[in-house]
Parts: sequence; C-alpha cells; structure tokens
Amino acid sequence: MSQQILAVDWGTSNRRAYLIDQQGNCLAEHEDGLGMLAVGGRERFGAALALLCQTMGVADHVPVVMSGMVGSASGWQEVDYLDSAVPVQHLPAHLAALNDPAWAGRCHIVPGYRYRSGATIDVMRGEETQLLGAVALGHRDGWLVLPGTHSKWVLLRDGLIQTLSTYMTGELFAMLSAGGTLSAMMQGDAADAEGYALGLTQAARGEPLSNTLFRVRAGVVAKSAPAQQAAAVVSGLLIGAEFAAAARTLAPGAAITVIGSPALAQRYARAADHFDLSCNVLDPHRVYCAAARQFFA
Amino acid sequence: MSQQILAVDWGTSNRRAYLIDQQGNCLAEHEDGLGMLAVGGRERFGAALALLCQTMGVADHVPVVMSGMVGSASGWQEVDYLDSAVPVQHLPAHLAALNDPAWAGRCHIVPGYRYRSGATIDVMRGEETQLLGAVALGHRDGWLVLPGTHSKWVLLRDGLIQTLSTYMTGELFAMLSAGGTLSAMMQGDAADAEGYALGLTQAARGEPLSNTLFRVRAGVVAKSAPAQQAAAVVSGLLIGAEFAAAARTLAPGAAITVIGSPALAQRYARAADHFDLSCNVLDPHRVYCAAARQFFA
Repeated sequence: MSQQILAVDWGTSNRRAYLIDQQGNCLAEHEDGLGMLAVGGRERFGAALALLCQTMGVADHVPVVMSGMVGSASGWQEVDYLDSAVPVQHLPAHLAALNDPAWAGRCHIVPGYRYRSGATIDVMRGEETQLLGAVALGHRDGWLVLPGTHSKWVLLRDGLIQTLSTYMTGELFAMLSAGGTLSAMMQGDAADAEGYALGLTQAARGEPLSNTLFRVRAGVVAKSAPAQQAAAVVSGLLIGAEFAAAARTLAPGAAITVIGSPALAQRYARAADHFDLSCNVLDPHRVYCAAARQFFA
Repeated sequence: MSQQILAVDWGTSNRRAYLIDQQGNCLAEHEDGLGMLAVGGRERFGAALALLCQTMGVADHVPVVMSGMVGSASGWQEVDYLDSAVPVQHLPAHLAALNDPAWAGRCHIVPGYRYRSGATIDVMRGEETQLLGAVALGHRDGWLVLPGTHSKWVLLRDGLIQTLSTYMTGELFAMLSAGGTLSAMMQGDAADAEGYALGLTQAARGEPLSNTLFRVRAGVVAKSAPAQQAAAVVSGLLIGAEFAAAARTLAPGAAITVIGSPALAQRYARAADHFDLSCNVLDPHRVYCAAARQFFA
C-alpha cells in the first residue's frame, strides 16, 4: 500500500493538489489555472494530470483521488451523484474508479451529492470532500457554510446531510460586475464596511434580489448613495440573502462553521454577527488534507 | 399653436415615435434601433432626431416631446427626477426645455420620477409617461405594472405615486441566458406553460433568487427536470418574485393593470391568476398616445 496520496480538488477554473502522507501531513501543494475549462476536453485530462505529477515530483505509483468538476459531464469522467442518504464519512467507500486505460487502477473520483426534499433538488460536486474533511475534524453536526461562486449551506447530523441549499452568490456578483445596469458603478471596494453593512440590513427584509439590486442603482442615479459603495452593497445583498434564508430556521445565537479563504470567511463572519449568529472558521486547505487522509485504503 | 405633436419614447436600445393630433389620434408611428446607446454620444442626438422627422415626414414647426433615457446622464440632456409628491397628471407642467441651440424652443423632455420611502429609493425614466397616459384613460387609482427589462410596480392614489418598486426581471433573464451556469440549459421556450407554472410556484415560497435559480440547474444536472423547460422556469421565478413581493401588500382578488405588449402581458396575466389577483391589460401604444395628447399646451 502506498505511503502517499495525491488529492486533487479539480474545479471549473482552477485546480489545487495536495500530496499527503498517512498521517495527513501535506508534503507538497500546488495550484494552477488548469481547471476543467482550461483542460479543453475529456481526452486531455490525462496529459493535464501527468503535468501536475511532474510539476509536483509525484512518483508513478502514488494513487490519485480527484474531486470536483473533474467528475461532471464535462469533466474527465461523469460520476453519478451519491444520494444524500449516504453519510459523509462513508464517502471513501464510494469512490469511482477512473476508466481511462492510461490511468486505470491508480485514479479515483469522489462522487458529488444529490439532495432532494419534496420538489426541491440540490447538488454539490467538490464540496462533499470538504464535508468529509470537516467530519474528520470533528464537525459531524451543525451548519457548515462553504462560500464561493456557488455558496453551499449544509446541515449535518452525525455526518448525514439534513438540508442543502446552494446560492449563486459569487456567480451573480461576477455577472453584475461584468455587464449591465450595475457594472459601471460596481468598480469600488466590495469589502467597504459601511456599504456591506447597508446591503446586509436591506437583505434582512427578505425582498427579492431583483428589486434590492435595482435599488442600488436607483440610489446612485438619484444621487442619494455613493457609487464607490455600490459593489459592497451588492455583496451585502447577495451574502445577506443567504443569511436571511438561513435565519428562517436558525435560532438566534446558533453557530455556523464557515470553510473558506480568510477574506471570504471574514466577510461571512461579519454577516453572521449582523444576523446574530456565532461563527467558526475552518481553513479549507487543512480541511481538504483531513479529507484526503480518509482515502488511504 | 401646433395641431400636431411628435412624441418620442427614447429608450436605451430602441426608440418609438408617434405623431398625434389634438384629439390624440395617431397619424404616424415609427420604431427603430436608434436608442440612446446606438446614437453614440450627446452631440449626435440632434442628427438622430432630424433623421426621425425626415423618415416620418414631420413638418419643421411640430413640437417634439421626448421621454426615457434621452433625459438621463448619458442621454441628450440630463433632466432631474421629479419628486413623487408631484401627481402624475401634473407632468405636462414640468417638462424640461431642451437647451441644444439647434432645437431649442421646439423640443421638451419629460422628467422621470424619484421615489423615496425611508431608506428605500427607486426611480423611473420613461414609465412616468405611461403613467400619465393611464391616468388620462381613467386609471388614477390602483396598481399599475409595467413589465420589461426593469419591471415597475406602481400604486397610484388619485394620480399620486404611493409606492414604486422596480425589478430587474428582464435584465437578469437576459444575463442568465447569455452566460454562466444556466445559459446552456436556457435555450428552450421561455413561454412553456408547465415550466413557467413551476417557476411561479417556487417563487411563491419567497426563497432568495440566488438559491431558486441554482436549483433550476440542480434539477437538470441531477436528471430530475427537463432542460427544455429551464428558460420557462427561470422566467416564472423572476416574474413570480415580483408577484410574491406584491402579494405581501395586496389582498387576494385585488386587481392590477398591466401596461405591456401582448406576449408579456399574457405572461403577467397568467402569473396574476397564479397569485389569485385579477388583471387588466392596457396596450402601451394606446397609453402612450393618450399621454402625448396631454402635452398640447
């Protein structure tokens, strides 16, 4: 059995790889822009992985476990979603073997989760590995929040997904910045504290984003609000919408655990405070390594 | 005094002009793509108007009244918003004279409205002329809905704006269709009745759009929902968000009046039915001509 595993978080735009030992120590780490889109087609994933192994000096016999969009319909090999009735800690028993003949036997892909409650469907692909790491670090119960392009709010009970809600927070922010009615006024600092707090306050009222986002523009063109704050207000509206929805089911003072980069985690911590929730932060790299350690057979 | 007026609804992407007589009869009508963006700069509006007059055979002495983005900061001449304390029927007394020396004396611009309630700011520019027409046609009281890129919901009391809420419905739909996570699956028929009803039903729950929009994708990638319906579901979510917000203040069975093209008005009528509201429809061209008639001095 190998003494090492290469774990690759292979997303849409980027990938991040960790070479870890059986104790979960990270021996090497690498990030680059060769995400699914940049790889450019199913048949080119092999070369992209070979390049990664070469760059990191990973030996030929080291097993590879990959998570994220690499397992989507546009990835290396489509892997069915796992039903959320399977507890997160059982994920290592559900890895899909890669069929690509050049890599078969050495590579596995972590399946994502499909969640269903009545007519509500939600999915994750990539975040399940963060959940596995969080559970391995003792977070088997409670709310886990994974902010990003598609922010995930997950309620775990003994490692079982109770609810899953995804918010297109990062994607909508990027879209609104890139074009349309708001983009010209969204060039200021999205972390501006005053603007962000304003957005959170407005989000708490539960009005539709299609309305509150327009009002950012209305305030500026009516010369009642400074354009420099607009990006931060939009950020507050979008992140605040997540908290306003969560606040429907969370008691005041309840705790959430955010797995995110320091900058994002800080913004979520401020929102948690605004919505009267307490907030722990976990470092996503540490969590991913804790997950990868579970993949030793 | 002139026997005719040329009224121009000069928007961001298009313009529509009506030559009317004192009885409000429309003698000629013209629409083209020379909206504010296509005109290409303040100093080129004069030539764009000259071309319009020539195309329509409008005599040199005929007064011109223009509404819409022509009066914005990026238009021909920025015209301050009117405070919503001014009743809609008084608009004709508040037209701004155009300063451009080549056209001064002949041309006026209709000011938009600024609405403020506490910290809530909203604005309109162009729709005020539709409101004037609606009031002229006897709709001085009740809810007027003007669907479009930026849908407006206005409550009038004796022609006075009581509330104004704008929703970026059309803009968000266009953005989501053009790029990002949902665009590939949004190529189906946005008017699909089943998908649209599904979106309306989900919108009624009042969950954030950033969440419900993602679930459209989740349903498709989890193979629980047909991709062909996705565009209609998104349309239902966005239009439904307007109705869900309005339903907070409207009693069941209450009436709204929609001023919109037949296709859009039909979609709003279906949503009204879904949310247990009754719905009248006014033709926007007829309404605009009714407004233009009020501009005879």
